Amino acid sequence: MSTGAQKKTYFDKRKEARGKVSSGLTHECGVFGAISSSASEPGNFEVAQLILVGLEALQHRGQESGGIVTSEGSNHFHIQKGMGLVRNIFNGDNIKNLVGHLGIGHTRYSTSAASESVNCQPFVVHSMHGSLAVAHNGELVNCASLRKKVLDRGVGLSTHSDSELISQALCLIPPEGEVDGPDWPARIKHLMHLAPLSYSAVIMLKDRIYAVRDPYGNRPLCLGKFVTFDESTGKDVDDGWIVSSESCAFLNPMQYMREILPGEIVEMSREGVKSISVVARPENKSLAFCIFEYVYFARPNSVFEGQEVYTVRLRCGEQLAIEHPVEADVVGSVPESGNAAAHGFSRQSKIPFGELLTKNTYVGRTFIQPSNRLRQLNVALKFSPISTNVMGKRVILIDDSIVRGNTIGQIIKLLRKAGAKEVHIRVASPPLRYPCYMGINIPTKKELIANSLDCKELAKEVGADSLQYLSVDGLVTAVQRDIKDKGNDLGHCTACLTGVYPGGVPEDLDW
Amino acid sequence: MSTGAQKKTYFDKRKEARGKVSSGLTHECGVFGAISSSASEPGNFEVAQLILVGLEALQHRGQESGGIVTSEGSNHFHIQKGMGLVRNIFNGDNIKNLVGHLGIGHTRYSTSAASESVNCQPFVVHSMHGSLAVAHNGELVNCASLRKKVLDRGVGLSTHSDSELISQALCLIPPEGEVDGPDWPARIKHLMHLAPLSYSAVIMLKDRIYAVRDPYGNRPLCLGKFVTFDESTGKDVDDGWIVSSESCAFLNPMQYMREILPGEIVEMSREGVKSISVVARPENKSLAFCIFEYVYFARPNSVFEGQEVYTVRLRCGEQLAIEHPVEADVVGSVPESGNAAAHGFSRQSKIPFGELLTKNTYVGRTFIQPSNRLRQLNVALKFSPISTNVMGKRVILIDDSIVRGNTIGQIIKLLRKAGAKEVHIRVASPPLRYPCYMGINIPTKKELIANSLDCKELAKEVGADSLQYLSVDGLVTAVQRDIKDKGNDLGHCTACLTGVYPGGVPEDLDW
Amino acid sequence: MSTGAQKKTYFDKRKEARGKVSSGLTHECGVFGAISSSASEPGNFEVAQLILVGLEALQHRGQESGGIVTSEGSNHFHIQKGMGLVRNIFNGDNIKNLVGHLGIGHTRYSTSAASESVNCQPFVVHSMHGSLAVAHNGELVNCASLRKKVLDRGVGLSTHSDSELISQALCLIPPEGEVDGPDWPARIKHLMHLAPLSYSAVIMLKDRIYAVRDPYGNRPLCLGKFVTFDESTGKDVDDGWIVSSESCAFLNPMQYMREILPGEIVEMSREGVKSISVVARPENKSLAFCIFEYVYFARPNSVFEGQEVYTVRLRCGEQLAIEHPVEADVVGSVPESGNAAAHGFSRQSKIPFGELLTKNTYVGRTFIQPSNRLRQLNVALKFSPISTNVMGKRVILIDDSIVRGNTIGQIIKLLRKAGAKEVHIRVASPPLRYPCYMGINIPTKKELIANSLDCKELAKEVGADSLQYLSVDGLVTAVQRDIKDKGNDLGHCTACLTGVYPGGVPEDLDW
Amino acid sequence: MSTGAQKKTYFDKRKEARGKVSSGLTHECGVFGAISSSASEPGNFEVAQLILVGLEALQHRGQESGGIVTSEGSNHFHIQKGMGLVRNIFNGDNIKNLVGHLGIGHTRYSTSAASESVNCQPFVVHSMHGSLAVAHNGELVNCASLRKKVLDRGVGLSTHSDSELISQALCLIPPEGEVDGPDWPARIKHLMHLAPLSYSAVIMLKDRIYAVRDPYGNRPLCLGKFVTFDESTGKDVDDGWIVSSESCAFLNPMQYMREILPGEIVEMSREGVKSISVVARPENKSLAFCIFEYVYFARPNSVFEGQEVYTVRLRCGEQLAIEHPVEADVVGSVPESGNAAAHGFSRQSKIPFGELLTKNTYVGRTFIQPSNRLRQLNVALKFSPISTNVMGKRVILIDDSIVRGNTIGQIIKLLRKAGAKEVHIRVASPPLRYPCYMGINIPTKKELIANSLDCKELAKEVGADSLQYLSVDGLVTAVQRDIKDKGNDLGHCTACLTGVYPGGVPEDLDW
Repeated sequence: MSTGAQKKTYFDKRKEARGKVSSGLTHECGVFGAISSSASEPGNFEVAQLILVGLEALQHRGQESGGIVTSEGSNHFHIQKGMGLVRNIFNGDNIKNLVGHLGIGHTRYSTSAASESVNCQPFVVHSMHGSLAVAHNGELVNCASLRKKVLDRGVGLSTHSDSELISQALCLIPPEGEVDGPDWPARIKHLMHLAPLSYSAVIMLKDRIYAVRDPYGNRPLCLGKFVTFDESTGKDVDDGWIVSSESCAFLNPMQYMREILPGEIVEMSREGVKSISVVARPENKSLAFCIFEYVYFARPNSVFEGQEVYTVRLRCGEQLAIEHPVEADVVGSVPESGNAAAHGFSRQSKIPFGELLTKNTYVGRTFIQPSNRLRQLNVALKFSPISTNVMGKRVILIDDSIVRGNTIGQIIKLLRKAGAKEVHIRVASPPLRYPCYMGINIPTKKELIANSLDCKELAKEVGADSLQYLSVDGLVTAVQRDIKDKGNDLGHCTACLTGVYPGGVPEDLDW
Repeated sequence: MSTGAQKKTYFDKRKEARGKVSSGLTHECGVFGAISSSASEPGNFEVAQLILVGLEALQHRGQESGGIVTSEGSNHFHIQKGMGLVRNIFNGDNIKNLVGHLGIGHTRYSTSAASESVNCQPFVVHSMHGSLAVAHNGELVNCASLRKKVLDRGVGLSTHSDSELISQALCLIPPEGEVDGPDWPARIKHLMHLAPLSYSAVIMLKDRIYAVRDPYGNRPLCLGKFVTFDESTGKDVDDGWIVSSESCAFLNPMQYMREILPGEIVEMSREGVKSISVVARPENKSLAFCIFEYVYFARPNSVFEGQEVYTVRLRCGEQLAIEHPVEADVVGSVPESGNAAAHGFSRQSKIPFGELLTKNTYVGRTFIQPSNRLRQLNVALKFSPISTNVMGKRVILIDDSIVRGNTIGQIIKLLRKAGAKEVHIRVASPPLRYPCYMGINIPTKKELIANSLDCKELAKEVGADSLQYLSVDGLVTAVQRDIKDKGNDLGHCTACLTGVYPGGVPEDLDW
Repeated sequence: MSTGAQKKTYFDKRKEARGKVSSGLTHECGVFGAISSSASEPGNFEVAQLILVGLEALQHRGQESGGIVTSEGSNHFHIQKGMGLVRNIFNGDNIKNLVGHLGIGHTRYSTSAASESVNCQPFVVHSMHGSLAVAHNGELVNCASLRKKVLDRGVGLSTHSDSELISQALCLIPPEGEVDGPDWPARIKHLMHLAPLSYSAVIMLKDRIYAVRDPYGNRPLCLGKFVTFDESTGKDVDDGWIVSSESCAFLNPMQYMREILPGEIVEMSREGVKSISVVARPENKSLAFCIFEYVYFARPNSVFEGQEVYTVRLRCGEQLAIEHPVEADVVGSVPESGNAAAHGFSRQSKIPFGELLTKNTYVGRTFIQPSNRLRQLNVALKFSPISTNVMGKRVILIDDSIVRGNTIGQIIKLLRKAGAKEVHIRVASPPLRYPCYMGINIPTKKELIANSLDCKELAKEVGADSLQYLSVDGLVTAVQRDIKDKGNDLGHCTACLTGVYPGGVPEDLDW
Repeated sequence: MSTGAQKKTYFDKRKEARGKVSSGLTHECGVFGAISSSASEPGNFEVAQLILVGLEALQHRGQESGGIVTSEGSNHFHIQKGMGLVRNIFNGDNIKNLVGHLGIGHTRYSTSAASESVNCQPFVVHSMHGSLAVAHNGELVNCASLRKKVLDRGVGLSTHSDSELISQALCLIPPEGEVDGPDWPARIKHLMHLAPLSYSAVIMLKDRIYAVRDPYGNRPLCLGKFVTFDESTGKDVDDGWIVSSESCAFLNPMQYMREILPGEIVEMSREGVKSISVVARPENKSLAFCIFEYVYFARPNSVFEGQEVYTVRLRCGEQLAIEHPVEADVVGSVPESGNAAAHGFSRQSKIPFGELLTKNTYVGRTFIQPSNRLRQLNVALKFSPISTNVMGKRVILIDDSIVRGNTIGQIIKLLRKAGAKEVHIRVASPPLRYPCYMGINIPTKKELIANSLDCKELAKEVGADSLQYLSVDGLVTAVQRDIKDKGNDLGHCTACLTGVYPGGVPEDLDW
């Protein structure tokens, strides 16, 4: 069993180069693509607007930067990328330049490194077989060897981003034994063999979009359509195709169809949607959909594997109540991420749910260098106890996860100050112990509190009367119990909890 | 009974001059003041930091502009004001200029009128008796006559703001029969007689702060202290005094003490806090604390009249369940403002509470000029139904108020699309019918949907199976039931619901 | 003879409050006003555009902030003010809001004090006799006593600016023995008696503009008109009136008419231009037009007292050649301010003129904290020697003035490095020795190099072979020689050169 | 003789893609490089500061964007690039990140295309043989075929910039018959054979900089050193090497050494400077240094081919006086570009020089949409006539070039309005008739006024009494007369005047 790299790999160095690491868990991307099947008149930018809506709905998957690339069917792509939130990058003026009937978009996690604007996706290159735009969510576990392959061919790479690497590799490396022609599906398939983990990608050519999910199914990707009401026939007709990291982005008039299968390449064009191929996983390897998408990252109304994320979180709360019951007067959550699990805990335990904390949505990153007197005000500004539900009560507080343990201790103090008689912490996920190499930004092993303190010690550290995590088995059960029609092909990546990495740990590169 | 002005008053014109009117209900201000009783060394800006924390906690009361004024005890005040959110106005650099051991701050509601930066509060003037800074929440109902009084004395007024008017009136008009000296409490008292409605104000001199609440008690204002641990005695000692529009701003190490009484003038100085005077209301007039602070504006953890706002909202929900019961499978709310009432409704009706909608906190003011196909995406981007709790269910949706009715109709559509069998709307406040002249920005009578459609019509309009409001009596009961020790002096302003204005409607001014 | 205040006056304190003092000489303002006599349709903002052009042409008189106020004939003025250069304050959008057929504008010198935006002019107040906007250039020498007068009437002043003081004084203080009515000319006249020095002001009411120059004529102000070609008659017709600090702002189709006389009040309205009054100076006082407008501040193409500034500067150069001749091969200037004097020196001395330095217009305020190696690069970046005219030559370098002596020494080094055999400095103005209290920002006496080093010492200090100033008599001769039709009433303020202040030094105020 | 392409080439399309074309002549770049030979301690960013100074001094060669790349000797380069002026891109904070003892910088001409920030130079790639940064001035005449070569190797190009193309070509294409190793000079030499025209480039590796000038010598590039005073020996010692587009950037303590020869590759490292190779021109091709660098682009104090640019411009003025004499009272220039030629004309003709116009340096790009009344104010705001030298005089106005003829006509009107009796235009360069494909942005043939009007017609069009250009022969004589020691190898590109392109016109690419 591999339990994480000890020495610095190319992968680690790349992380460092990226600048400051976020203090909590952060996603690394959301992707979105759309193609309209009806003819667009020149100057039409409705598809760009649709992508913009999609990116706003995926904003929780990354707030550092965003971008949209569109085409009217020619190799002259229209591009708008920038740092910051989607609503700050795009405006009523620049959106109008993004004309065309197909396009892809991307949103990425947050750092403040302004000079990194060169890393914004989608990444666009001009190749001998036409223009190409690539956006992806995930990280290439074997980026080092793929990078070496590309460099050895005499290509210079101007960034450390996987998107550039994927783009150049697609242009550069035709499948062995095949002619160096414009057979993009063959090139994509070949690349998927070279780099089977981990990505969900949208790849745009002048007249089509390929939606690609890695053979392990590590990152989510799903398919939808949009629908127009045809007045002549009185019926809804399919009028285009969309692809998104999460189904929460399919707002009316968009409709969810299905997930892209692990290893599948789907081609979207004006002619419709077709599944081109399903690339197999390396032998003896299991499916490995990221279980933390259920626990933490995804929006509660997104659907994975046929079930709504909210339902899974409810079940995690129920399971938690079974595994670690405690007598109390009220159960509540750290809003809003712990809400579903708290309701599940309440349902299972029959202890009434009550709002314990109210969240101040106006509070941003605060700059105060607090004096002694003003210490720990940031948490207090963000979360305020509601006395009605706390005063004189034994309280169970559900959190979705504990990363460093900084916040929970201060919240407990606030609850006690507001009159809580007892405070019991129940965490709706297992302890987080290992780094992720597949698209999630997790603090170092040393920083993960679960690696230094057990439940009892942590309870003492944060000032709780008790503290318990959901078990790994409990989580897996909550996730897999109701998944139907999967046969033997059912599997989730729990690497950050167990240290078992589906595709091994990344290779090194002396560079 | 006066039911609102028909012709344009000075008041109306002033509203127009202010530029675009917000689409919903908006507050007009929050105030905060602090004085440290321990000696501060030169360069100390801890009091400014404390005020900054207070303003962040009061940010829900106004997002247009903010300001802080401090003093080290001299007439040379330090001022920082600006447009936008508190966290955008102040930064690690400019906060350091706000040295001193006392100060006041202000935050104001949102318009985009950049040229209005001159209207930012606190308003500072130099007078023959020293410098003076004024910040207030509320509106002077008789601003027109007071303005005329000031102009007639030969003073030019450079803005339409009440703060300037209050400042100049304080400087200009000594109490009749008294010498024109620096007796500021007498001047304040005199002004309160001239203009008894509506304001909560903080008035800073070089070495003291006066906290003032209008005789009707229309706007909230409360008193606190901050406490330091004295290592030599091992005890907490009072180390300063604070005043705030709402108690939610009293974060640790600040502590809530009591409300400022209607008509009360409290003086805060290094010597301590003392109640200077309580100015009486005009004869035959009742107390008139704004009931919409409970319903809509205040943070749920704020305390008014001895009760937590959250408790009152819970009771409104219970009362609503009594007044308008309906059979259903689940009761939920439009997050987050309707949460408390939904829990109250659930508790009373025994119908289980369930989260019906999840809110996308990343979505800001979106600029999209939607095509037909993309209509109504804004609401969908903001609120997404949670199928787990909606699909196949009869749903009761609690909202805290309905102003124009635009949003609720689109939410109902989303719920139906997500599979709700029935959707019943219950509004945890009575229909809003009249404008406010006391510090709340309410759309025009014509725009208020309750003035054009009754419950049945509105239910049909928005697509609900039923729609009911809480009664005015029900609301008043929910608010007043548990208020103790008020004797006969208990009263709330319900002007926006009943058209009965505690101080009459504003006068006109031909200007 | 009074030679400048020794102890800190209110005036000094006000200067300090203004924040960082510029390193050289800086002006404090330019004013501009315009009224169109033809009827404007609603929405017309041509007058604002005209003012904008005027302010751009007066930008050399102040780069800190600017503002324009217009009116369509009512008391509702349109205002746009801001920090920075005119072209950054106004844009194609906000200029459109400045509708109306009359308006005034202002531009002010540079500090970085962002919080001072409240001090931007024009200053607008609403008075009992209508709205009033005031913009001025200059400083009230007796601001302290006037301020006390206003404060004693019970008025609070919110800034330290003379514009607010002038505005409130105009509203507040009717001429003694007169009724407190809307007779603005009488009020202005009265104020001019109370405060005879120093200002050129434009005062706008809803339908007219008063152009006012102080009785000493210390600051410049001139009158113009604009002209439209009438197609029906084939003739130019006067179509409006304009007033400006300098005639350089009268661009086509504006035409220069005459100077406003010292003490004159000119009323501009749709009915035309008329001279209302000429207020007399205090007895025994001489005219005192700032001689440094000729030497340094004004644009070379501006006209004062019937002569173009460029001509006066040429004559200063001629006079300098007479007073301090020297043998040399080439005479040139520090571009561009010394150009005219250098040409004059060349003409008189018969030594050929040659460009010695080229100026890099792209270089801005540079932020480099230079290491030892990079010291003094700022001057080198700004001015580069032209070898063609310098190498192997004896060079005379004309500068318009020497304030601190920092720059000239570095320029001399550059010239020597470029091969100059000798470098002789000739300064086209007398040594600057005293502060100004009338609108010019001059460094302190201690900082003025002429107060610590005589010509020989300074030559040594800066590395010149010789260094000589123009004499005060020489300057006065150059300025006054060709002024015609002035009779006995001819006088210039030379306070900064001689310490003789036309109106005495400012009074103190204990505040 | 080839006289410019008729159909749209890849080159043309690339120009279009670049967005709005400037209205006058614009340069396309300046480059600068520096290496310090003394050991730098970690964190030292003096070299970056030196480059910054160099870029500020080269700012006239491009105002669109800028960038600096440094290295401490490893392949991890430090990069800062951005849109706008150098002083807006770099600040006291970000300059500190640019540590290292060697670096290169770039500045580029102005467009407003924000999305083009990806095109900022220097361009950095990681190759199998280490990191590489490239910045250049010029344009590859055969970019189309080189681009095809690169694309055919399977490389995707993400921009249309020559810098990316040069970078990838350097990585990709080893000299024929040689191994694919890290012999960068061989790669550079090979590229120079493939693409002999037109560029001056700086190419940085982790420990050295190559300065490269194309074999035609079309773009300028010169070498310098910087010098430190060694206190122990009391002597100046060479302490590093610098390279710059123009010598005007060599400010103290930098010193000019010599020009890089046409075709030369110079290697700068800590070991010193050495000339690696001089690549020959294609047979029968002449040297082709851009003659417009003398006429228009370069700073007057820059040195090319052993002569100061100012001297050449003086001689152009003298030559012009010989070719096209005219009786007049005064000769002057459009400041500041025509100054030198005007002095030359004056010297030759004995007609006195006089300043005719003063330039308003504060006027920026103005946004006014002028009404009829305000037409042509932009030119009037920028240039004002000086009556002293114009009124009643016969005036000769020297301009350095006429591109579209818009400005000169308005200036003539201003002069006549100011009283000029006659206005004779003399242009110190021949008529501009052809586009440039070698790094200069020239309007289209149709827009060039010289292609539609001859001298007489143009004089009439602009309202001049006469108008004459310098002849091509006259210009070439003025430039070449005093160049010594060049033997037969003397040649200048006059393509924009004669249509004779030294390397032919660009090829087409069907893309």
